[in-house]
Formats: sequence, C-alpha cells, structure tokens
Amino acid sequence: MKRELVKILMDAEKGLFEDYWRISSEELPLGAEGWSIEKKRLRGGLQDGVDIVEVNNGRLSFTVVPTRGMGVWKGKFEGYPLGWESPVKIPVHPRHVRLEDRGGLGFLDGFNEWIVRCGLESNGAPGEDTIIDNMGNEKKVDLNLHGKIANIPADYVAVKIGLDPPYELSVVGTVCERSMFGANLCMASKISTNTGCNWISIEDLVENRRSTPWEMQLLYHCNYGSPFLEDGSKLVAAVRTVAPRDGRAEEGVRQWNAFGPPQPGFVEQVYFVEPVWDEDGRTRVMLTNKKGNKATSISFLRSELPYFTLWKCTSGLQDGYVVGLEPATNYPNRRKFERTKGRVVKLGAGKTYGAKILIEVHFGEPEVSKIEGQINKLQGGVKPTILGSSDRRFSE
Amino acid sequence: MKRELVKILMDAEKGLFEDYWRISSEELPLGAEGWSIEKKRLRGGLQDGVDIVEVNNGRLSFTVVPTRGMGVWKGKFEGYPLGWESPVKIPVHPRHVRLEDRGGLGFLDGFNEWIVRCGLESNGAPGEDTIIDNMGNEKKVDLNLHGKIANIPADYVAVKIGLDPPYELSVVGTVCERSMFGANLCMASKISTNTGCNWISIEDLVENRRSTPWEMQLLYHCNYGSPFLEDGSKLVAAVRTVAPRDGRAEEGVRQWNAFGPPQPGFVEQVYFVEPVWDEDGRTRVMLTNKKGNKATSISFLRSELPYFTLWKCTSGLQDGYVVGLEPATNYPNRRKFERTKGRVVKLGAGKTYGAKILIEVHFGEPEVSKIEGQINKLQGGVKPTILGSSDRRFSE
Amino acid sequence: MKRELVKILMDAEKGLFEDYWRISSEELPLGAEGWSIEKKRLRGGLQDGVDIVEVNNGRLSFTVVPTRGMGVWKGKFEGYPLGWESPVKIPVHPRHVRLEDRGGLGFLDGFNEWIVRCGLESNGAPGEDTIIDNMGNEKKVDLNLHGKIANIPADYVAVKIGLDPPYELSVVGTVCERSMFGANLCMASKISTNTGCNWISIEDLVENRRSTPWEMQLLYHCNYGSPFLEDGSKLVAAVRTVAPRDGRAEEGVRQWNAFGPPQPGFVEQVYFVEPVWDEDGRTRVMLTNKKGNKATSISFLRSELPYFTLWKCTSGLQDGYVVGLEPATNYPNRRKFERTKGRVVKLGAGKTYGAKILIEVHFGEPEVSKIEGQINKLQGGVKPTILGSSDRRFSE
Repeated sequence: MKRELVKILMDAEKGLFEDYWRISSEELPLGAEGWSIEKKRLRGGLQDGVDIVEVNNGRLSFTVVPTRGMGVWKGKFEGYPLGWESPVKIPVHPRHVRLEDRGGLGFLDGFNEWIVRCGLESNGAPGEDTIIDNMGNEKKVDLNLHGKIANIPADYVAVKIGLDPPYELSVVGTVCERSMFGANLCMASKISTNTGCNWISIEDLVENRRSTPWEMQLLYHCNYGSPFLEDGSKLVAAVRTVAPRDGRAEEGVRQWNAFGPPQPGFVEQVYFVEPVWDEDGRTRVMLTNKKGNKATSISFLRSELPYFTLWKCTSGLQDGYVVGLEPATNYPNRRKFERTKGRVVKLGAGKTYGAKILIEVHFGEPEVSKIEGQINKLQGGVKPTILGSSDRRFSE
Repeated sequence: MKRELVKILMDAEKGLFEDYWRISSEELPLGAEGWSIEKKRLRGGLQDGVDIVEVNNGRLSFTVVPTRGMGVWKGKFEGYPLGWESPVKIPVHPRHVRLEDRGGLGFLDGFNEWIVRCGLESNGAPGEDTIIDNMGNEKKVDLNLHGKIANIPADYVAVKIGLDPPYELSVVGTVCERSMFGANLCMASKISTNTGCNWISIEDLVENRRSTPWEMQLLYHCNYGSPFLEDGSKLVAAVRTVAPRDGRAEEGVRQWNAFGPPQPGFVEQVYFVEPVWDEDGRTRVMLTNKKGNKATSISFLRSELPYFTLWKCTSGLQDGYVVGLEPATNYPNRRKFERTKGRVVKLGAGKTYGAKILIEVHFGEPEVSKIEGQINKLQGGVKPTILGSSDRRFSE
Repeated sequence: MKRELVKILMDAEKGLFEDYWRISSEELPLGAEGWSIEKKRLRGGLQDGVDIVEVNNGRLSFTVVPTRGMGVWKGKFEGYPLGWESPVKIPVHPRHVRLEDRGGLGFLDGFNEWIVRCGLESNGAPGEDTIIDNMGNEKKVDLNLHGKIANIPADYVAVKIGLDPPYELSVVGTVCERSMFGANLCMASKISTNTGCNWISIEDLVENRRSTPWEMQLLYHCNYGSPFLEDGSKLVAAVRTVAPRDGRAEEGVRQWNAFGPPQPGFVEQVYFVEPVWDEDGRTRVMLTNKKGNKATSISFLRSELPYFTLWKCTSGLQDGYVVGLEPATNYPNRRKFERTKGRVVKLGAGKTYGAKILIEVHFGEPEVSKIEGQINKLQGGVKPTILGSSDRRFSE
C-alpha cells in the first residue's frame, strides 16, 4: 500500500484554503535531503492574488501556478533555468488577461510559463467557429488564441508526498472549463517528481461531465530559452513528416530543427510534425545546446498526444528568445480547420481523456549523446518527408 | 417605532469592510430560536474574493452574494434545497466572467443562482442595439445576455434584525450600474425573511441618478430543480396568453406548463406569458412536484413586473435540469425588439422604479392544494389563449 | 548628495508588498509640519484590492492609485477639491473594467480621476487599426478608448522623502504595458510635491524595452469641476490655432475657452489646440473660476507634449460636470488617423520618452492675475487662428 502524506491546500467547494504552507526535508526527514514544497500567495501588481506552489526535489525545482490553470511557471535544474525569459515578467492573474484582446491574442498578455496547457475546448489559432447556443441555434463565435484553461484558477489543489522510496513529490489540482450551455470539461492534473531526480512528469485526465458528447483539444506548450536554446542548438526528433505552417516557415524548412541566435524582428516559424513512434507507441524529442552537453527531452504517447508542433521564435532576447516543443491532440490551427481534418477529440458523456508528458533534463555530453542515439535509432530507416507549406493536410 | 439592530458590513465610499461577521439567536436571544446571519469571504479558485451573507431563519435559509449583484445563490427549507444544480458549482467572482464571451453568452459562466437579477440597462437576449456615445453619435454595440447587474459587486451591504415580532431578518445592499456617459442606475435591495417563516422577500428600488432619462430593464430569474422539478411537475398559473418564443417552444406548447424528466440534449423552451391579475393587480405562480406536496410560489404585481416568462430547461442532470420562473418588466428578448413593443422602462431623471417578489415554500398536500385553488380561482372564467410562435407581438 | 528616505511599498518581482504603511511629520520631524504619506488597500465593492497612496504636503494633498496605472484620483488644496465629481464614485479595480465594452468605451466605467494618463500604445478614440500579429501578418484590431495604461497595476511602488529642504515628497512607480508579440512599454513615474507648496509634479519616463521600434502615445487627462469650473469660468491659454473636433464643437467655437453652467444632456465639445511656446519651448494653460480668484494651471514642454486638447463636458452635475485639460504627444483621435498626420511617437529599441507636467493651484486674485498676465504676454502678437471642423489636419 502506498504510504503518503496528503495536504489539501485549497478546496473551493468545501471552503478550504491555505494562504501559506510549507514542508521540507527538515520537518519531514525522508531518505532524501534538501527537498521542499512551499505554497504562497503573491501580492502586488499584476500578480496580486496568484497562488503558487514551489516544489524543489533537491536538484530540480519548479513552480506550479494553480491560479493559472495548473501551469508550470519556471523551473531550475542544478542552478540552470528551465523555461524562458518572456517579456512578461511575473505570473499574471487571469483577471488581467482579456483573452479577446488584440483580435483574440490576449493570451499573450500572461504568457511566460515554462509549460502551459492550451485547451480545453480549443487550443489553437484565434478565429471564427460555430457553436450551438442556448436556444439550439448555430452561432458564430470568435475563439481566442490557445483557449481558456491557462487562465482559469484551479478549484482544488493538494500536495502529496510519498513516504517510501522513491519519495514522490506531487501537486495535484482540478481545473474546470465549464459553463451553463457550454463545456463541462474538468481536468484532474498531477505534476510530480521524485526527490533528487532529473525529471518532472505531468499527468492529466480530462473528463467531460456533460450528459452529451463535447469537443476537446489539449496541447502542452513547453518553452525553452537559455541554456538549451542558443545559436547552434538543435531539436533531435524522429520524424516521419515535417510540414511548415506557412510561407514564412517554409523559408527555413531545410533548417527546421536548427536554431540561430537572437534576431530582433525574427518572425516565428512553426512546423507541424508527424513523429516516428516506437513499438509502444512512444516518442521522444530533445532540445540540445550547441555543445551537446545540456539538453532536455519530452516523451509522450501516440495514443494520447499524436501530433507534435515546433515553434521557433528566436527573436530578440528582450522579446522572448524561445522555442516551443508542443505535443498535442492536434495541430494548433483554428479549430474549424482541425475539425475538417478529424483532429478534434470528441469526448462522450462522462468519458475521460488522459495525457502524460515526461520532461527530463540531460546534463553532460555522454548522457546527451545516449539519448540522441536512442532517438536516431528510432528514426532508423524512416526517411523524413519534408513538405511545402501548400500541403492542405496540415495547415490552412 | 421600529426597533432594529443594524450592522454595516461594507460601505466602500466610507471605507468600512468586515471580512467576517456573525450573529445568531445565541448572542441575541429574540423570541425565536435557531436563526443566524453570517458574513464571510470565500477563498480559492473562481470564488476567491466573493463575499456572501448566509441568513438562516431557523427553518428557511439562503445565501446572498453581494459580490454578484446581491443575487441569492442557494437556499434550503426544512432540509430541502431551494435552487438548482448548475454545472457551475461555486459562486464565480465577476472578474472571471467575460460577459462578451461566446458571442455575448459569458453570463452563463457564472450562472448558478437560485434567484438572479437580469438588468439593469438590458436584461434579455444578446444582440446589437444602438446607444449614444460620448460624442453624441449613434453607436452600434453588442449587448450581452441578461445584462450586467449580476456581475457587479455591491458597494454597500448591511444586515438588519428586527428586535420585535415578527423578528425580520434582512440583508440590504446597493449595486450601481454606472459609467461616465452611460447609465447611472443604482439599485437599493432588501432581501428579507422573518424568523421561522416559509418565505423570502426581495424588494428593489432602482434609481436613475442621471440628470437625464435613461432606459431600464429588470427580470428576476428564479430557478428550480429538485425537489420541485421532477418528471410530472407542473406550473400552476393564471394566464391570459401564452406565447412560445420560437418554433422549438411551439413544439411543446400544449404541455407548456408540464415538466418531464431530465433529458440529455434537451433544447430549452421558453414561453412568454400574460398573467391574469387579481383586483389588487397581483398574481401568483406556483411550481409543484408531481405528488403535489412540495411547491414554491412567487407573487408579484402588474404595476411592477407586468410580464412573466417560463424557461423550461429539462436537460441532463449534470447540464442543469432546471426551470426558471421569471417575472419582469418585459420579455427577455433583445432590447431593440422590446423597445419597439413599448416594453422598455424609461426612467426620468432622479426617478425610481420599485419591484418586489415574494417567494414562498409550500410543503404538504393540503397547503399546496389551497394555493392551487386560489390560483385556479384567479383564472376563473378567463380562457387562456395559446399562441403560435409566429405572433410578432411577443417575440422576434 | 541627496539625502532621502526610501520606502519600497511594492516590488512584485522581488515579492515585496506592504498592505499598510504610514509616515508623517510626527514620526519624522523635518523642518515642515502637517505632512503625511499613507498607503492602504481598499476593500469592498468595485474598489476591493485597489492600493492607494495618499500624500499630504500639509497644504495640498493627493491620492496616487498604483492599481490604476499610477493615476491621481483626487486631491485637495486648502480644503478645496482638486478633481471632479464623476458618476463613478470610487476607484474601480481594473478587473471590473472591460475596456472593450460599449464598442470600446469601457474605460469610462472606471473614469473618475483628477489626472489620468491615456496611452501607452494608443491614447485616443476607439476604432480600428492594423497591427502585426505573432505570425507576421497584418491583423485588424479594435483599439479601445484612451488605451490601457490607466487599467494596469504598477508592479513597483516606492515612497521617497527628501530629508533636506525643500523636503520633497514623492511616490514613484513602474507600470508596464507589455505582452509577448506586443508592446513592451514600461513607464517609470514620479509624482511629487514639496512640503507646504501649491503644486504637484508628474514626471514620466517611458522605455521601449523591445529589441525593435514600437509606437507610443501619451496624454495627461487632467479634469476639473468645482471650484475651478463654474458658469463664467474660462481657460487662459496662449494659442496659435484652435480646431473644433467636429460639428458639435464648432457650434461653440467662439466661446471655446469659456464655460457655462451644468446643463443636463450637454454633448461634449472638444478643441484641438496648437499652443504658443516661450523661448524655452514651454507653455502654460490656466483654468480660472469666474471671480478670477481660484485657478489651476498646467505647464508643459513642446519637446515632450506638443499638442493640447480641451474637453468641455459641462453636462448635469450628476453626470460629470467637468473640463479636461489634456497635454499630449498627439490629439486623441483614432491612432490610425494620428499616424497619417505624423503624430504618433515611434520609440527606437531601448529608447525612452520623457514627459512632465507641473500642476499649480493659484488662490487669490493677485496671484491669478499675475499668471494670466504671463500667459497673455506669451500670446503677445500672435493672432489665434480659429478653424472650422472641416480642417482635416486636426480631425477626421
């Protein structure tokens, strides 16, 4: 039987709420040293009222933001940052994010997370789509960039600490995207690590609590700057197909997986990728620095996250020098388009959809080489197809 | 002279604010037992920062939500719930409600009250209307579903307790819907009950504080699920005319006042009703369960709330199995349409508009039968006219 | 060397926040008496969570609102109010202001400041403009009235007190209007006075923190009611050109600088002015009451704020009887139009734009006459050109 300490930090329905809470290896001596979990509420400015939970496994740390849909704001591994430097410097309370702003680009006003989910009703580009309104009529609405989930506070948050090796440290939370006459998609999320390890795991289970089927989209927007991104960095991935999103991406398609230096005014390039999957239906992508001694990888399953998107945004340092690795249920085009391609999940009444990503950090040339070898082996005899932007299977 | 205890819980202009306050029959022994009033601030998730005032008269209890325009969230009578089960589970802070969302349906993101006011500038369906802007020009704007009042926090809240029989317990509050170059409609609300009684009363006075006339609309959206709503429930009402809102409502017009079981995917049916009024200009509608031993009624005056709308939304239990009884200054069509029918109040400079509803709970077959008899008597020789949906006097 | 006491009240990035703080001549005896600075957080209603800093120099007091972009809510001079009576009575938390409401007029829901900045990306009338989106494409967006800065909380706030004569009291703060793929305009503001003096000074420095150039607009909307505005008040200003914004303003162009009594239903009149500048490139405008013994003036520089707008809004007292004196980088037309006239600042990467206004209060006929004389001298031989509203250099 699993022995664990469970601490509920927030349960809105039951009226439980901890303004501040902390635990560490000092109060709870496990076999491991130097770990801690701290919950606090931020004050002042755009972050006023934002709750965060900081987890430190002794070697790798990360900050979960319940108020921003259980996203992961920033992390650190052996002193090096995990994440990126957005022009937006602090966690922005959703009340200051007007998603409809700038023609549906308001999401970007609070966008600075290492890992942020896009979804749950839609996760892609802003644009028109048709819904059924309360009167049963079709209604044209404007969907916003990347959906709502990142700007909905969790209603339930708890911390769990495994009391036996490997001493799992996890933050669990529930975020519901729901409305009368609308979606009722509730996501139970578990973000975990083990003491002293080099990884963070995210496991989400989205339930359609309606009594009728409903559409769902989910994307994990995992974003990196230094030390993984630099001039000469590359993405190592086993790919079957690479499709540039548009003419702009097509310009750089031959170097689609290679990254240059910060370039003020650089216009983003986006590539839609069909990965090669191993016999368990798993793939792994790795971003490595130029020297090949600092890398980070993401593993995910075809059955859960069948599509992968690479976002290259190597613009000026102040403007967000960043690449995004994005496993998802679809490509982040407008939902209307993805629907025509059969890439929108339809969840039955009461049904759930699970998704997991495992993010690992690899330091040292031998370790990075090993992972690169594994990915190359997965590529094996598969010759990647590099498409042009005019291929209508991938983008509009 | 009325002897009463008055406790100010919030006065924004004067800087008064109580985070928590409570009083009960234990501290203040009146002739009655078991009553209490408790003010608290909710924390965490979408409800973070929402102030509520819970009133319990010893037999009937209800929760006023100043932060949501003095709506009444939930109630209880002798252990049975008053209200309904919305998919939205907790009181949602207005800052998380983007009224313009989903083409003006954002109101639904926070919609879960037993009694919620719609208004004050507009109270009906979303849609375009024309206003005069700061430059004196006509400007086309999109009005949102059910207006703004339910998502504006009260600026003043107090509790009053009558020290003599019948020991009135009331929550009073002021909510202002106002803007430079816009409305300045301030609503003084009193929500009251007596110790040990079976009713709750709402009395509102809306003042146009502008120096020029302004339009006003007000609707009381009173919503019920179990135990009043079930397969076989019915609405008892004395009616002169019943007009289905649209083709969908017309499908069920013969059973317009009868309710079926939860039906996933059920599309709402809305009926616009002209009541029969008694000689004092009063009418009463009653929702009763199948057995006729659990019912709730609403009484209101023609001079204040001349129109009545029935909202049938007997969809799946998780999706909000509910009927709404809606006395109002108009029918909840688009304001533009209601204006053409003369059903928009125009309040003169400094003028007020008062409205009251009395909600009673009737338990036991004899009591329910008695009220049904009274309503049938009011119907008397009046033969109800049941219209088709094409009648343009009632809907677009 | 400047000796000063510095107290940081809020630093979001560093996690510093003072809920309440106060200092006064009693705790810190300088050479001056009766001064104080008090920081507090407002509670309840629409003001819940708004931070204010009240500065009293012993003779003149004012309230800085960090939560509303470092605007200045209200002031007082020798017992007389500085500012105006908006229908909006309390400082409204930005979370309750939906800027896009009423076709882009949502700013008006929180508009009640004595001095409020309009900007930083745009500062004028609502309307369509074209931006470049994240994909490098042109995108049509709707800009809202008066921009965003007044509804963005400061992320850094401090108080500084000069320990030597003239004992400067100042509030400094930083407000950033920034987004991924958007502006990154950060304004460092200093709002100051000296103990016992008759003025308040605002010095702002806006930095474009992007690595590419970006547009900027800034306007100081300084608003007055009684005792400066009354029937018979006038604006004293040295002007080269006066252009009515539209036909409505043209109706009153002969009395463009004279003010009448409160008039319910009065439609605003706006005049675009080219000031006469002195040899240092400075001008001063003064609003004086009928008797000429209570006046307030604003001084500003051509190099910083080359355009001046007068807003006459002498409507009913309850509706906001007010005139606005508005030195700015442009006229508050739609940005799209101002751009065609070369009146939109383009800030280079890393560049700053500084602006200052000095607001003085003049009591007593001799003092008011003296200032009027100085302004008349500045007018000197320059004959004002009064244009019609059809002049397309000034308005659309």
